[in-house]
Amino acid sequence: MGNRIAVINPNSSTTVTDDIDRALEPLRTSGGETIDCLTLADGPPGIESQTDVDGVVMPLCDLVKAQDNTAAAFVIACFSDPGLHAVRETTDKPVFGIAESGLLTAMTLGDRVGLIAILASGAARHARYIRALGIESRFAGEAAVGLGVTELADEARTLARMIETGQQLRDDHGANVLVMGCAGMARYRGTLEDTLGLPVVDPTQAAVGMAISAVRLGYRTT
Amino acid sequence: MGNRIAVINPNSSTTVTDDIDRALEPLRTSGGETIDCLTLADGPPGIESQTDVDGVVMPLCDLVKAQDNTAAAFVIACFSDPGLHAVRETTDKPVFGIAESGLLTAMTLGDRVGLIAILASGAARHARYIRALGIESRFAGEAAVGLGVTELADEARTLARMIETGQQLRDDHGANVLVMGCAGMARYRGTLEDTLGLPVVDPTQAAVGMAISAVRLGYRTT
Amino acid sequence: MGNRIAVINPNSSTTVTDDIDRALEPLRTSGGETIDCLTLADGPPGIESQTDVDGVVMPLCDLVKAQDNTAAAFVIACFSDPGLHAVRETTDKPVFGIAESGLLTAMTLGDRVGLIAILASGAARHARYIRALGIESRFAGEAAVGLGVTELADEARTLARMIETGQQLRDDHGANVLVMGCAGMARYRGTLEDTLGLPVVDPTQAAVGMAISAVRLGYRTT
Amino acid sequence: MGNRIAVINPNSSTTVTDDIDRALEPLRTSGGETIDCLTLADGPPGIESQTDVDGVVMPLCDLVKAQDNTAAAFVIACFSDPGLHAVRETTDKPVFGIAESGLLTAMTLGDRVGLIAILASGAARHARYIRALGIESRFAGEAAVGLGVTELADEARTLARMIETGQQLRDDHGANVLVMGCAGMARYRGTLEDTLGLPVVDPTQAAVGMAISAVRLGYRTT
Amino acid sequence: MGNRIAVINPNSSTTVTDDIDRALEPLRTSGGETIDCLTLADGPPGIESQTDVDGVVMPLCDLVKAQDNTAAAFVIACFSDPGLHAVRETTDKPVFGIAESGLLTAMTLGDRVGLIAILASGAARHARYIRALGIESRFAGEAAVGLGVTELADEARTLARMIETGQQLRDDHGANVLVMGCAGMARYRGTLEDTLGLPVVDPTQAAVGMAISAVRLGYRTT
Amino acid sequence: MGNRIAVINPNSSTTVTDDIDRALEPLRTSGGETIDCLTLADGPPGIESQTDVDGVVMPLCDLVKAQDNTAAAFVIACFSDPGLHAVRETTDKPVFGIAESGLLTAMTLGDRVGLIAILASGAARHARYIRALGIESRFAGEAAVGLGVTELADEARTLARMIETGQQLRDDHGANVLVMGCAGMARYRGTLEDTLGLPVVDPTQAAVGMAISAVRLGYRTT
Repeated sequence: MGNRIAVINPNSSTTVTDDIDRALEPLRTSGGETIDCLTLADGPPGIESQTDVDGVVMPLCDLVKAQDNTAAAFVIACFSDPGLHAVRETTDKPVFGIAESGLLTAMTLGDRVGLIAILASGAARHARYIRALGIESRFAGEAAVGLGVTELADEARTLARMIETGQQLRDDHGANVLVMGCAGMARYRGTLEDTLGLPVVDPTQAAVGMAISAVRLGYRTT
Repeated sequence: MGNRIAVINPNSSTTVTDDIDRALEPLRTSGGETIDCLTLADGPPGIESQTDVDGVVMPLCDLVKAQDNTAAAFVIACFSDPGLHAVRETTDKPVFGIAESGLLTAMTLGDRVGLIAILASGAARHARYIRALGIESRFAGEAAVGLGVTELADEARTLARMIETGQQLRDDHGANVLVMGCAGMARYRGTLEDTLGLPVVDPTQAAVGMAISAVRLGYRTT
Repeated sequence: MGNRIAVINPNSSTTVTDDIDRALEPLRTSGGETIDCLTLADGPPGIESQTDVDGVVMPLCDLVKAQDNTAAAFVIACFSDPGLHAVRETTDKPVFGIAESGLLTAMTLGDRVGLIAILASGAARHARYIRALGIESRFAGEAAVGLGVTELADEARTLARMIETGQQLRDDHGANVLVMGCAGMARYRGTLEDTLGLPVVDPTQAAVGMAISAVRLGYRTT
Repeated sequence: MGNRIAVINPNSSTTVTDDIDRALEPLRTSGGETIDCLTLADGPPGIESQTDVDGVVMPLCDLVKAQDNTAAAFVIACFSDPGLHAVRETTDKPVFGIAESGLLTAMTLGDRVGLIAILASGAARHARYIRALGIESRFAGEAAVGLGVTELADEARTLARMIETGQQLRDDHGANVLVMGCAGMARYRGTLEDTLGLPVVDPTQAAVGMAISAVRLGYRTT
Repeated sequence: MGNRIAVINPNSSTTVTDDIDRALEPLRTSGGETIDCLTLADGPPGIESQTDVDGVVMPLCDLVKAQDNTAAAFVIACFSDPGLHAVRETTDKPVFGIAESGLLTAMTLGDRVGLIAILASGAARHARYIRALGIESRFAGEAAVGLGVTELADEARTLARMIETGQQLRDDHGANVLVMGCAGMARYRGTLEDTLGLPVVDPTQAAVGMAISAVRLGYRTT
Repeated sequence: MGNRIAVINPNSSTTVTDDIDRALEPLRTSGGETIDCLTLADGPPGIESQTDVDGVVMPLCDLVKAQDNTAAAFVIACFSDPGLHAVRETTDKPVFGIAESGLLTAMTLGDRVGLIAILASGAARHARYIRALGIESRFAGEAAVGLGVTELADEARTLARMIETGQQLRDDHGANVLVMGCAGMARYRGTLEDTLGLPVVDPTQAAVGMAISAVRLGYRTT
């Protein structure tokens, strides 16, 4: 297994996988870990509902099993952390969900965490998860960009909406650190930070950072 | 500043600093960050009370100021996270406290976090901090090794007490992941994990892992 | 659809389905709802892990779709509430999970709810769910019967363990109402109540009770 | 006692009792429970303050005692759940408060519960009760219709205000299920659901639904 | 009204009122407030159930009304804080409940508050109130002396049981400050403090202390 | 030591100390405690950051040590409660922080506590402290006057901003009791109460009130 970290995009979009891959470039060093980004071929084009979330778990477990001999850690790169605990039962390697890692990392950078969501329809799902994580007293709230897949291809428009959303979280909800509630959006991070004056966490970057530490330190898993 | 991470032991014991330094070896890679461990010369021999904690903050800020031009991130290596927020005001580099980082990292490895404390007298201080972090619903409780500085030099005895303490947290408090509430104890981690069958987090390792990610990703600080 | 309530046992054991069916007899009245108990043929023999839970969601959604024209409400009769929110997206009929309904019903019968679990291995999964429900301040804790499927067939032994477990929850955890963390155990309820002197909730009975109200009152679902 | 459920309106308004009675019609079936609505003759015309709430407890206990031989369960039909725990001490039949039952039922229909209150002056009283129930993390907030008894007789005006209030809870507070904070308003439920696109719970209907289950299942009380 | 504080014992035992009166002696100063202890003649001999609590509210409001012209503040001297909010509606003078005041005062003297209760049967009632106050994260738990009225007359036995109870709260529940869950027990406070090595709060003393401040500072009430 | 209460202003402004001194006049009685207001000569002109807070702790402990023989209780008169727990380790006299005392006192006067802060920059520091106190479910939020030291000298402008801030807390955050988040502002309290129709707590008055009780009752400290 060496030191290879397998980052799995559970939707079938290789464009998203490529965006994730580029975002992880700063975490690669010459003597460091191999970070491989994989696409779940059986996944839906996008994960937008609880049904989408639950629907990828079994294929995801299968892919993890297939990769288990060659990976030292796994990252599930979808903000709903699909199958996080099932995958943890599947492998004895450390497994990181990007929502869990992104939110916990944000808690080291600010006091109240705001979530830039893509769609408003995920709010109840996110709320359940924030409560399950036990961190609701640090959660400022979420606001949604509200753009569909096609519209997200328009980068200028997407950025403009992310900025508006971030301002709303900062000014109305009192957030002082933001998490992007989606994989594959890291390219907007710098501009968001500069425009909003707040730290912004790309959750996949955060999760891979945690995976690097876990691989080096060799945590036992339960 | 390059990519140098300054890890500051806020007590004056260079033995502890050396223990910390050794514990960080797995986090050093050829093309990676420089991790320097510094001793706060003005600190007390050990930090055992709230007065000790508060007493190191100003010297710590001074040391951070002196290192600010040559460090890309700071880690405060005492489980009471002395001066964490004052240091964050002192520098615009990311700053990690080992308690904050250790507890949040543990939340990715298990559901209920148990704390192996050194002295029972810190319980109320830890309880205040756990509440301030907003993670009390994930906190299983703490149990103390109960050994003084001299006794801690007896490694067999220390290990035996850590195992007893860990068993108590696992069996009586329902912890399924443990954090060592002290810097410089990482050498016991492997044996504890194997004996207890649970992941065990050395908080300084966890914080330096987070600092590595932060240096690579360049988070804005607020 | 009329007034037919479809109760789905998501494991493949028809013995369990039959036990559930018998337990619902008191909820059937001459002029009242039809309560049909179905077995998820594709389910595993028992649901004991998060992987088992996640694995039944898609087949469960398929079964719900197939029954959607003839059912007025659905009950998912497994204490992990597998796929509860995915099923709610699948149908516009009200859907009840037995854990959610059982725990909330218990909150009308006592102040602190204790959970008689079958296996100790579900504790972290239950803890996540209790937090997600937002009711942890009413949760006294759980204790496990600790018997496997074969051993559960020995009714005297099962009852004895349930009584011991209930006493532990009552005396050590301060529970004053108990929920059985499993479908198909209602036949022990009366004896448990009499022996322990506490109300005991069979969660499937509770969920079907809620489904009956929902069918009569015609709640809109979101 | 048979299967008679006694629903007690603790204010002296028989108009309200009649409204409650009509609202319970869907819960009556030929072979099912008898649902009798009683008026507390000694109650005030309306219950609008904590003093009103506390003032009805002793007469309510007296009425429950007088009905104890002929009732299988009791429902206290005032949203402040006056005397809920005193009545539970008075009888060994199950007793349901409409606030408790309505709020818990709403938690099965949506993630964040909004409360349509009649008067703004009850907000602190409701807040204390929501905390006492331990469900504040599921509570989106309340907004008040703000009409007095006479004005409430104007049904068009009342409905219009309820819709405005519901929109405020949905759009500003993020509620995705609503509870009407009053007995005797069920006739507005359907229109509210259709206009707002959210489930709306009439708390008396919810409580009587729970009472029906309790009667059939014969829960022991403590 | 001047500066007279009316302390009302809501049970009819003048022995208890006398005990309360003696306990308040240290709070009387030559130039200070008049502290008058009154007995609610209509109260029961002791307040041991929720029915007892609710039963005294109306007589208590009547007594407060009768005293309103001559009192500058009121203290309700029963640990269930009967009618606290109804009395606050009855008068525009500040009103203090001894449970509320005692628990909040204890939070300034230690981190985790343990409650020495008289009877175990009050636990659920206390738990509801602790949650309603919103301070459950500071509450270590309660343990009961378990003596009836007659037995409480045996002071040696009562003290012995209070010490045992306090030790249990300190050693098993982690309490580092204690509150006596009863009026009229202040004479045991000094011995308890010395024996247990913890601060012990008599709640009536705490409430009268708060009332003195309120009278001097003239807080507006809402 | 007698009955002298030492109130320490940890900033070096004697104007603020004088304002505090005048605010405590109503708490002085002929036969009562001596209340002495001291200025921490080594403190900064104002305490506006976490660094300012932490910077005064050691000098504060020194001053407390110097006063320990002649004081019966200490009050730390800065809303960040600098060094509260370190000072509690330094002396065995009771020690009160004005934030802790002010917030807890407010909880006896209203249900939801709003904080009139001076500067917006303290919000995260206050949020951490509110969580550490475990009272966040009673906290309505904070709003800042937003005036610097020079501007605060303009009393009309300061009062106008305090009123606006209080209205915002009352109307937008649902606060029904307010705490002034600063020492030395008590002279605005009466006007604020009358204008806003809510109780307003000056935290130094609240803390000295608690200190008076503690001195009279002689609480053991831990």
